Amino acid sequence: MAYLTPRRPAGFGEFLPQDQLLFQKYLQTIQTSYESFGFTPIETPAIEYADVLLAKGGGETEKEMYQFQKGDNQLALHFDLTVPTARYVAEHRGELTFPLRRYQIQKSWRAEKAQKGRAREFYQADIDVLGRNSRFDDAEMVHIIEATLRKLEVPNFTVHINHRLIINGMLQYLGLEGLSTEIIRLIDKRDKQDHASLQAEMEELGVSAEITKQLFQMVSFRGTARDAIEYLKQMEIDNESFCQGVQEMQDIISIIQAMSLPQESYVVDLSIMRGLDYYTGVVYETTLDNYPQFGSVCSGGRYDNLVGYYADVDISGVGISIGITRLFDRLKQEGLLESDRQVPSQFLVVRFSQEGLVPALEIAKKLRENECSVEVYPEAEKIKKQFKYAHKKSIPYVILADAQETSGDHVLVKNMQTGEQQCMSFFELSRL
Amino acid sequence: MAYLTPRRPAGFGEFLPQDQLLFQKYLQTIQTSYESFGFTPIETPAIEYADVLLAKGGGETEKEMYQFQKGDNQLALHFDLTVPTARYVAEHRGELTFPLRRYQIQKSWRAEKAQKGRAREFYQADIDVLGRNSRFDDAEMVHIIEATLRKLEVPNFTVHINHRLIINGMLQYLGLEGLSTEIIRLIDKRDKQDHASLQAEMEELGVSAEITKQLFQMVSFRGTARDAIEYLKQMEIDNESFCQGVQEMQDIISIIQAMSLPQESYVVDLSIMRGLDYYTGVVYETTLDNYPQFGSVCSGGRYDNLVGYYADVDISGVGISIGITRLFDRLKQEGLLESDRQVPSQFLVVRFSQEGLVPALEIAKKLRENECSVEVYPEAEKIKKQFKYAHKKSIPYVILADAQETSGDHVLVKNMQTGEQQCMSFFELSRL
Repeated sequence: MAYLTPRRPAGFGEFLPQDQLLFQKYLQTIQTSYESFGFTPIETPAIEYADVLLAKGGGETEKEMYQFQKGDNQLALHFDLTVPTARYVAEHRGELTFPLRRYQIQKSWRAEKAQKGRAREFYQADIDVLGRNSRFDDAEMVHIIEATLRKLEVPNFTVHINHRLIINGMLQYLGLEGLSTEIIRLIDKRDKQDHASLQAEMEELGVSAEITKQLFQMVSFRGTARDAIEYLKQMEIDNESFCQGVQEMQDIISIIQAMSLPQESYVVDLSIMRGLDYYTGVVYETTLDNYPQFGSVCSGGRYDNLVGYYADVDISGVGISIGITRLFDRLKQEGLLESDRQVPSQFLVVRFSQEGLVPALEIAKKLRENECSVEVYPEAEKIKKQFKYAHKKSIPYVILADAQETSGDHVLVKNMQTGEQQCMSFFELSRL
Repeated sequence: MAYLTPRRPAGFGEFLPQDQLLFQKYLQTIQTSYESFGFTPIETPAIEYADVLLAKGGGETEKEMYQFQKGDNQLALHFDLTVPTARYVAEHRGELTFPLRRYQIQKSWRAEKAQKGRAREFYQADIDVLGRNSRFDDAEMVHIIEATLRKLEVPNFTVHINHRLIINGMLQYLGLEGLSTEIIRLIDKRDKQDHASLQAEMEELGVSAEITKQLFQMVSFRGTARDAIEYLKQMEIDNESFCQGVQEMQDIISIIQAMSLPQESYVVDLSIMRGLDYYTGVVYETTLDNYPQFGSVCSGGRYDNLVGYYADVDISGVGISIGITRLFDRLKQEGLLESDRQVPSQFLVVRFSQEGLVPALEIAKKLRENECSVEVYPEAEKIKKQFKYAHKKSIPYVILADAQETSGDHVLVKNMQTGEQQCMSFFELSRL
């Protein structure tokens, strides 16, 4: 029969079963962690009206969006989870209870330039509190990042915390608010450029060397969260935004301290900017201490009223997003994730003779009732062949259903790694 | 601020949090059930090359596919999970271990005519064994349907089992194989049309009244599985396909009987056809006894070599698919699914004074370590206001973190339903 070569468009990844099992565990862990903080799931359609997705403004986003006409409608795949959530909240606001503490774990799509395996389809795990402007929520986001990444066994990481009012206030104080877009862009590039060329660019903007020095000194501050607050206070900047930012930061840090997170898991980092558009309060980035090249694996912040694009309301929110696909792919590349099995089965039930079918099925049933994953070999073939199958599928234990040793609550079990055989009860099996 | 009315294209549904929680439990239950049989997950991209998705032939499918051009590529959203799986197996066959026992729970998209809320985006839960032609696998699919629907608490259902070789053999025997497409279509319509008009249509095809009677008598057979086999055998149809079909059916039924499923959960139903194209062996449909208007909620069968569209291989498979979105929506409409909560939180931790923050966070931490879902109230506001919040969010228990009664391993808990307050240990709380 003539056939078509199986192929996939670039940027659309998929896993072999062993990695899919691992990835699914990843998704599950994030979900469980988010729910442990009492957040509720929502899910929005993959397809929305293109104009609805672009309400916040097109730009780069529009170019990267998968758009298409269907009938009279211009449709598109969502490129993040923030915009659909804003639409969701506006649409259902009469039926929702606020504050809405929701999480959303879904794929998004972006037709980015295909470079070194950059994913065009990727999972994100967002979590937000909408409709409450509270420092507790700002602090809890750090707690959630810490708890979730720890459960994912992500190696040493640091949550970097900043507040947009601090930088905005400082720029106002220095009479530079008109240049804030350009200056924030330069601060964002700080780690990637040498000091001299940055200073030259600042000069071109008309900023004196003295003021540039003052600014870069501030955003370069390193120290404990407590030190950072002290440092900001002793600067004695006479600006309302700046003072409010410092006060909010102090409140957030004192709540985080009550959460007794490991001291090394978070830091106040005055250089964190998170782009320009919608953040208005606290902002977060999370880096891996030994893999700075990963960039931020979990970011977010407080924003004012994204829902306002779709309704005449005022809903403040704070949230974070884990770029799961990217984090997973990178940890995998670094050899930090090891898939140990290709099937979920813990047990293969085999039999010597056709008469073993009924006991084999009974054993499988009992194990499944104990939440075990069990496969039954389809035929009473040569026992060696059945063992070989377990090896091939990396199933760790084989149960011999019609062995003489099997009786009542005990069955004969072979450990495929050690080759050892012993009789075990169902209770013991369920603890393996 | 000017805003855009939030709206969604027709056929793209989404749930309020309380229903999303329920739906997610549904997905989770299916996943756990599928894994308990030792099946492994795979996931394929939402977007594929359009020609790859249409390899099996376009027709109706092509019209319903969401297609679009991006750069030089004609792309499309997959309209089922069978075609992407065939492509996946062909593409990765060198790295997969066969038989591949895989499941796949994902959304698919079809631009169907928008009629009474028909979903254009919907979840399917597929499970298949690929690369083994075994009666055990044919039988196990019935076991999986029974176990999964039971765990979903779907009300009384019946799995209808048939075999394509039986009807094909019968048509051959009657000299009607040239008309099999048309006749099978008529048998499929049997329940929707009156007998006389069907007979007239058969006559138009040139089939005598006598033969029509014989055929409709067979497909109308009702009785236990054992009776059906007896009935088919005593017909003494001298046709190889027919005899092979009956023999395979007998083997399948005897394995199902060894699985000790409830007798009323399955039946041999010779009228089940499952369309025309790729099924070649056993076929399944599942109906709800009290809701025949739902149609089949879980269908499938054995097919020969779908993978052959993408590679020069011979891979037989058997599988089923649950139309989750449709099943869920219909059970919900009938009032058979009741969402009891809008947040996953079991506990809200409150405090009388600001000093209660540290004990409140410690209590929440301990409960989360015990896999509980816990929310901490953000401020030490009036206790009445905090209780009101728990009511509003339907959180069943409130813990008073800085109550005098709280000490060491015991905390004061208020049951929001009964109003009762009592001291409980963390162990007791985790059992609530």
